[in-house]
Amino acid sequence: MNLKNEFLKVDKYFSPRVIGEVNDQFIKAAKIKGQEIPWHNHESEDELFYIVEGSLLMEIENQENFVMQKGDLYVVKKGINHRVSSKEECLIMLIESKTTEHTGKVKSQITKSIDEQKY
Amino acid sequence: MNLKNEFLKVDKYFSPRVIGEVNDQFIKAAKIKGQEIPWHNHESEDELFYIVEGSLLMEIENQENFVMQKGDLYVVKKGINHRVSSKEECLIMLIESKTTEHTGKVKSQITKSIDEQKY
Repeated sequence: MNLKNEFLKVDKYFSPRVIGEVNDQFIKAAKIKGQEIPWHNHESEDELFYIVEGSLLMEIENQENFVMQKGDLYVVKKGINHRVSSKEECLIMLIESKTTEHTGKVKSQITKSIDEQKY
Repeated sequence: MNLKNEFLKVDKYFSPRVIGEVNDQFIKAAKIKGQEIPWHNHESEDELFYIVEGSLLMEIENQENFVMQKGDLYVVKKGINHRVSSKEECLIMLIESKTTEHTGKVKSQITKSIDEQKY
């Protein structure tokens, strides 16, 4: 599959879509625009971010914020509080354990169950 | 990190380099040119291929060959015999279990141990 084309099927912001799997990890396509994701962490799971298009503000507790650009890859380690946002549309590939809840234990308006991410 | 820049540190063909990890998976940068990888499989591990630059001929037993282009992503499922090659230089991001041997149980001239992939 062409990674970028997979985002054509993602019609909502903040609604990751499972596009594949590798071993015990899901590969997801997520489209975001704005600041709706709450601070959260994944207690025992790392989360890979790869920017396919656009740019992403990555905020990590006790670290300096940084902006990820197209082609950048970063892994948020388990247990680390983080929040991501973007002013303009940003396309992100995520790789995370099949058990990972996308907003961690924090429930917010955007929170989707893993089943809801298989659309 | 910028994914493409990671390939600047890969100075040999057929010599995957571990550039990160997410959960129980390694993220690797591999540069290939030519046909040196033997047919092999990974008995109990899937392997993700993502083409960062160039194009890759993917041969899979009992399936039609196909060419992957820049931006294409494909997961070879565990136990499936496969072989990859390219006429011109091709840059590949791999995601695979930390235990995966890159040429499976097949040993060839290009085979590197996992420690040799941490350069």
